[in-house]
Amino acid sequence: MKRKNASTLKLKRLHIDTQIEHVVYMAKNCSIYKSEGFESLSRVQVSLKNKSLIATLNIIDNDLLQEGEAGLSENAWHLLEAKDCDEVSISHPKPVESMAYVRAKIYGKLLSKENFNEILSDIIQGRYSNIEISAFITACAGDNLSIEEITGLSQAMVDTGQHLHWNKALVVDKHCVGGLPGNRTTPIVVSIVAAAGLTIPKTSSRAITSPAGTADAMETITKVDLNLDEIKKVVEKENGCLAWGGSVKLSPADDIVIRIERALDIDSEGQMIASVLSKKSAAGSTHVVIDIPVGKTAKVRTAESAEKLKYYFKVIGAAMNMKIKVMITDGSQPVGRGIGPALEAMDVLSVLRNETHSPQDLKIRSLEIAAEVLELAEIVELGKGFKLAEKLLSSGEAYSKFESICKAQGAFKVPEYAPNKIGIEADKSGVIVEIDNRKLAKLAKLAGAPKELSAGVLMQCHLNKEVKKGEILFYIYSAELGELNYALDYLKSQTNIIRIE
Amino acid sequence: MKRKNASTLKLKRLHIDTQIEHVVYMAKNCSIYKSEGFESLSRVQVSLKNKSLIATLNIIDNDLLQEGEAGLSENAWHLLEAKDCDEVSISHPKPVESMAYVRAKIYGKLLSKENFNEILSDIIQGRYSNIEISAFITACAGDNLSIEEITGLSQAMVDTGQHLHWNKALVVDKHCVGGLPGNRTTPIVVSIVAAAGLTIPKTSSRAITSPAGTADAMETITKVDLNLDEIKKVVEKENGCLAWGGSVKLSPADDIVIRIERALDIDSEGQMIASVLSKKSAAGSTHVVIDIPVGKTAKVRTAESAEKLKYYFKVIGAAMNMKIKVMITDGSQPVGRGIGPALEAMDVLSVLRNETHSPQDLKIRSLEIAAEVLELAEIVELGKGFKLAEKLLSSGEAYSKFESICKAQGAFKVPEYAPNKIGIEADKSGVIVEIDNRKLAKLAKLAGAPKELSAGVLMQCHLNKEVKKGEILFYIYSAELGELNYALDYLKSQTNIIRIE
Repeated sequence: MKRKNASTLKLKRLHIDTQIEHVVYMAKNCSIYKSEGFESLSRVQVSLKNKSLIATLNIIDNDLLQEGEAGLSENAWHLLEAKDCDEVSISHPKPVESMAYVRAKIYGKLLSKENFNEILSDIIQGRYSNIEISAFITACAGDNLSIEEITGLSQAMVDTGQHLHWNKALVVDKHCVGGLPGNRTTPIVVSIVAAAGLTIPKTSSRAITSPAGTADAMETITKVDLNLDEIKKVVEKENGCLAWGGSVKLSPADDIVIRIERALDIDSEGQMIASVLSKKSAAGSTHVVIDIPVGKTAKVRTAESAEKLKYYFKVIGAAMNMKIKVMITDGSQPVGRGIGPALEAMDVLSVLRNETHSPQDLKIRSLEIAAEVLELAEIVELGKGFKLAEKLLSSGEAYSKFESICKAQGAFKVPEYAPNKIGIEADKSGVIVEIDNRKLAKLAKLAGAPKELSAGVLMQCHLNKEVKKGEILFYIYSAELGELNYALDYLKSQTNIIRIE
Repeated sequence: MKRKNASTLKLKRLHIDTQIEHVVYMAKNCSIYKSEGFESLSRVQVSLKNKSLIATLNIIDNDLLQEGEAGLSENAWHLLEAKDCDEVSISHPKPVESMAYVRAKIYGKLLSKENFNEILSDIIQGRYSNIEISAFITACAGDNLSIEEITGLSQAMVDTGQHLHWNKALVVDKHCVGGLPGNRTTPIVVSIVAAAGLTIPKTSSRAITSPAGTADAMETITKVDLNLDEIKKVVEKENGCLAWGGSVKLSPADDIVIRIERALDIDSEGQMIASVLSKKSAAGSTHVVIDIPVGKTAKVRTAESAEKLKYYFKVIGAAMNMKIKVMITDGSQPVGRGIGPALEAMDVLSVLRNETHSPQDLKIRSLEIAAEVLELAEIVELGKGFKLAEKLLSSGEAYSKFESICKAQGAFKVPEYAPNKIGIEADKSGVIVEIDNRKLAKLAKLAGAPKELSAGVLMQCHLNKEVKKGEILFYIYSAELGELNYALDYLKSQTNIIRIE
């Protein structure tokens, strides 16, 4: 019992944000640190009331912490719902049993849905360190997961998250595998499909490595951080929503895993498929259209990879009781003009409002996707979806639905341009033969997107266009002059972001 | 140029020890944090004069840091040779190119020695985050490395580290794969072999997950943290040394990788073989005896695994121009009586001094290993090594050599017992049929080993011994009463650490 008291420390909030890793800070002169044998440990268990997590141990040797005090990183502080002066107990962490499955996977063993369930539950409870999550991702990356395993992983992601239930036999959704700047079709597709009377409870992500996610773009127009009840209300009233998926925890394990995966820059096909399908299934979708843009600088680079993904999506979707339609689309250049939250939102509004100069590529692609959704849901005959979608758009019904959804979500405002703008000119005359999606995305990010909602790149050209020397190829928008310079420096260091011949 | 100044921060030492991860701390209100777009980054490059590293970004929102100031974790502070008020520049890290090889490995591609060289160089330069090192380990774990790859990895480890050179055609060494408590044969073998006139520049590790490494045990008798020059001097004078390998950086990449590997608790056969052979090669060894104890609770659990390891060691050793002899030994119980630095050192001294009650199992095993070394070096005929080794031990020549080596290293003192001691009794009469090495090791660690050099477990029994109820099976030694209780709690929670039937 004596030791029990000895391993209790008084919390002091340090306001240190360590991002994804949970960290507990202890003073170097802390007596329990030595007496309990924590010295040689890098991970300890921290418990407060009925909550507990495993944190990385950092030792502080300044006067920020006194003996008997402990600090927590901000993320751990919130997870434990800590308050200053709360007493936490620190103990040796029990081995994380489910790491045995990760080790088995490394040796090429097949994992079951139950194995994945245990792994994901432990990850959600903060029992995996980042290096352990990294090992899990790596063991499952490449071609290391079978179709059965990806199915098991997807179902485990659903099992360990929240669910949406609808009293409908038919709930539709759409998803784009991504990697193409702009390409903000979702708000347009949702508006058309909801106007057609279908239920489409669309949750989207924020950008993690791209200049904008749908949630970032929609945030310049409406409120996107809805909870589960708010989403239900909006969808029951308007058939659809355009919410951020982050606050609803449809697949909380995936939300954690994906951050490490992006930091590693490892593409795990199985993880990606499971991530997409689990969120659709948890959102109650029955019919889903998936868009895979293919291009040299898109996320999916070859037709072969796209075909393989297509097959996986269909088979695993079917195993999860969803009907999947996969579209393989052109990923050779950005879609629409804007790259960045507000600039993309302006494109969306322009298409929905049927403005004369609206970006036609974005309009056509949105209509094509909407057509596939309408046909998959069998509310029109095959081949007649495009016409119905076009009618709903040109009649203004889609725009009116969009406005209603935004208002139901809590706001309808107009996105704004950033104060700093510079036009980038063609350095020679000729025809545009290649556009580098990745470099354009990077440029938009250096200009401040997505954190600065108004920052980004506004395209003034497309493939095969004939341009004259001095003609503006695109504009860069930024909130701060410093960021504009940063983007310009990058631009100078690169050749052939837009190749003219 | 303006931005260049803007991304410069003044260092303030925070004395935060983050162990293996490099961390840079910035204030939340820091203007460059936002203007330079670091907000969304988890990793930034920190440069000071001609040194630089990539660190994880932590944001501090208390008065420890003012705007314009930055802090570094202790490990990063030392690596950059930082002083208070030094100006560091913070920039976006360039992508780590060699991660492309790690990704290729995940997809099952074969890596070349050059690929491994680039990866290890980047790791040594602090360019890999822990999660990236974890991905590297995972991709190379299991059966994922071919013999050619392990050879390439071993050679890359040698290439990226320091080397020892001897003007001798014959330099011997020994290594134990480990996992057996006690089993402190190294000091005895080195003394015998050096007394026989062979050159044996032995560097050993400290414990990472075990209750004692050879370096920890030797530290209770002599000084072990020698630099490269000191090792050279001792070996030139005495033929051998018993130094800690940590300060000589024979394989600095491995020293970093191994810590993540242990934290992951992933056994990577390829990494282990490369780790052992690279250090032997860098130390200039030409003839090496490797001891693989096999037992249910040892590191290597089956004869098949041991045979496979044996084959790998021989083939890869040959590719690195070393002659390897592998011994497969009994790993079913601890060897010697002590488990813990000082207790093991006492066993070593007892054997070297030919004391009547010295642990015979440790003596025999040491003689067997020494015999293999002598025979491998061809200074005796096959089959006559044991007799020569026995002669050198019983004559006192080995002890005298041990004493000389210790004195040459800078000290010769006597290890001490810990103040707290408790005897653990048999709870029934019968025969000892099983001993759990792992649980005994854990018990010794809970009692304070290896940090408390005098703590640990002292065995009073062995397999097949008949014991009476109430007879002492082993003692636990600890420096603090708290640690003794901690070990006793664990003992109570376990059954069959020593199984009597």
